[in-house]
Amino acid sequence: MTKNYNIALVGLGNVNRTLADIIQAKGSELAEELGFTLRVTAITDWRFGTLVDPAGVDLAAVLAMRPDDTFVALGGTVPAEGSDNEEFIRTAPADIVAEATFTNPVTGEPALSHVRWALEAGKSVCTTNKGPVAFAVDELKALAADNAVRFEFEGAVMSGTPVIRLASGPLKGVGMKGFSGILNGTSNYILGRMEAGLSQLAAIEEAQDYGYAEADPTADIGGSDVRLKVMVLASQVLGVELASEDVPTEGITAITPQMISDAVGQGKHWKLIGQASKDADGRVTAQVAPQLLDASHPLAAIPGATNAVMFDTEYLGPVTISGPGAGRIETAYALLSDIIAIDAALA
Amino acid sequence: MTKNYNIALVGLGNVNRTLADIIQAKGSELAEELGFTLRVTAITDWRFGTLVDPAGVDLAAVLAMRPDDTFVALGGTVPAEGSDNEEFIRTAPADIVAEATFTNPVTGEPALSHVRWALEAGKSVCTTNKGPVAFAVDELKALAADNAVRFEFEGAVMSGTPVIRLASGPLKGVGMKGFSGILNGTSNYILGRMEAGLSQLAAIEEAQDYGYAEADPTADIGGSDVRLKVMVLASQVLGVELASEDVPTEGITAITPQMISDAVGQGKHWKLIGQASKDADGRVTAQVAPQLLDASHPLAAIPGATNAVMFDTEYLGPVTISGPGAGRIETAYALLSDIIAIDAALA
Repeated sequence: MTKNYNIALVGLGNVNRTLADIIQAKGSELAEELGFTLRVTAITDWRFGTLVDPAGVDLAAVLAMRPDDTFVALGGTVPAEGSDNEEFIRTAPADIVAEATFTNPVTGEPALSHVRWALEAGKSVCTTNKGPVAFAVDELKALAADNAVRFEFEGAVMSGTPVIRLASGPLKGVGMKGFSGILNGTSNYILGRMEAGLSQLAAIEEAQDYGYAEADPTADIGGSDVRLKVMVLASQVLGVELASEDVPTEGITAITPQMISDAVGQGKHWKLIGQASKDADGRVTAQVAPQLLDASHPLAAIPGATNAVMFDTEYLGPVTISGPGAGRIETAYALLSDIIAIDAALA
Repeated sequence: MTKNYNIALVGLGNVNRTLADIIQAKGSELAEELGFTLRVTAITDWRFGTLVDPAGVDLAAVLAMRPDDTFVALGGTVPAEGSDNEEFIRTAPADIVAEATFTNPVTGEPALSHVRWALEAGKSVCTTNKGPVAFAVDELKALAADNAVRFEFEGAVMSGTPVIRLASGPLKGVGMKGFSGILNGTSNYILGRMEAGLSQLAAIEEAQDYGYAEADPTADIGGSDVRLKVMVLASQVLGVELASEDVPTEGITAITPQMISDAVGQGKHWKLIGQASKDADGRVTAQVAPQLLDASHPLAAIPGATNAVMFDTEYLGPVTISGPGAGRIETAYALLSDIIAIDAALA
């Protein structure tokens, strides 16, 4: 009999809905490649309510729901006013909880509590939320180990582009000295459009029109999104937990059209770079700031909304990975890749 | 007690000598990170002879040897005229054989036999040789599985830059549709220098002066080196074993200064691309040929002797990794990363 993992979805927004869609559409193809099947046995969402079926919920029906439907029509319950999901997460008949709600960038909640409850209940967790990782990764990894389960979060940095697992797996033993990254697609898109002659405001509006930028683009262009990702990478790549105040952060708002055109004239590129490096004594320094890169720099030509990380290593020198940093399908794949890693670790 | 692996070095050229150097200089630091120690217990080389000590050979003395020394001074034997290394490999007191001799590009020998003997004798193998992988990877992997050991060969494609293990590990389940790569640093260096105004001949001579190009650069600029790497990647990334004749191959010799300057004028770049892709029916087509890339292509800006592979994936679109494709330390790290993977798989 093929091995199976029961999955509980916490949050049914774009990301978990797309994960459900992949499981529904590609489940048997994936089972052949991966050696296990996936069954969604529980879902909770603030709009739709709660649906639990240990034999597997009817994903086709779930995916056909319209925005004002609830799970009542499928035998579930309406959204519970003021519920904190604790009972749902602790009791869901699931091996793995896919956490894809939202994070308060200061506290990491409610995602942080969701992860704790799941791990305490002996369920592995995959999440795309930066908050729990940036603020409590060591605690949560220890909690997972104590409960013989796993805490995986590839999607916290570059959606499904495997930057965390590249560093901890294939690049193990390489002598990591630091990293520099383009970790926010919106700001990279805006800088690229400014090189094409747009004002920053016009570029922001265009990014909003294309859905790259939020209505309030502050976290993207102000650098705080990148700062959280630098904190996550510092812990996973360099083994050091940094606090927000350890990462001086400057966004791209001070970059003027004149600065951009001067750079273009010299064949250079302004990029918003999040970086951290470890000195010979093991001290880590980190920052987020715009940097003027020569055309030969591995991050200089990263276009549009693409993200990239350059690892600075002892044995290989610079090694760079680039790929998408956001997107519905790309982020859902991050959760799938976490589930694959959970299987590999626990098998 | 810390876990230990005994290592036999087959060939003591630049690569295995550097691996020995890393073990000698960084062994205890690595043990702390990796959880195991490494001990070189046997070495054979056509110049130096054979040295075996189950308690560990004196690496400092080995690394201090001069080109006309032999292992006799260290208690070993002189090079055996006409020996094929079979007895050495089968009987060496080692858990892992590090194979770094040379490969006949048509037969894969003698590396191929070296790998077979080691696996048959129940020893895991790491190698930087393309030949055994390009010509017999499925047979050798099956042989390793039959003997409960591992066959690892990250260095066969981009030295230590982890392209094989990125595809098989962190990118598992991503829906691999194909790949395109800059897989030969010498030819990429030459094309870059031609963009700076050199003739192809002058660029080749410069590459030879810097040690990038062999005295006979045919395999580099004619594309046959890239063809072997495309065969390795096709098997490991797309799961299809190709024969040499399945990969139509054209090098860079027909690229003229006029073609280069026309491209530069349009903001484009000529690159030698090795690629393979799988269609909806699972049929794989592959080729090696110069291609004219737009500036926005992820491989267009890869400079100098750097290598890169762009994976074309279902869930993430293009994902690109770039890094060194050659070099003494870079290739020795490939062997170390193989040993780390062997430990992870067998632990």
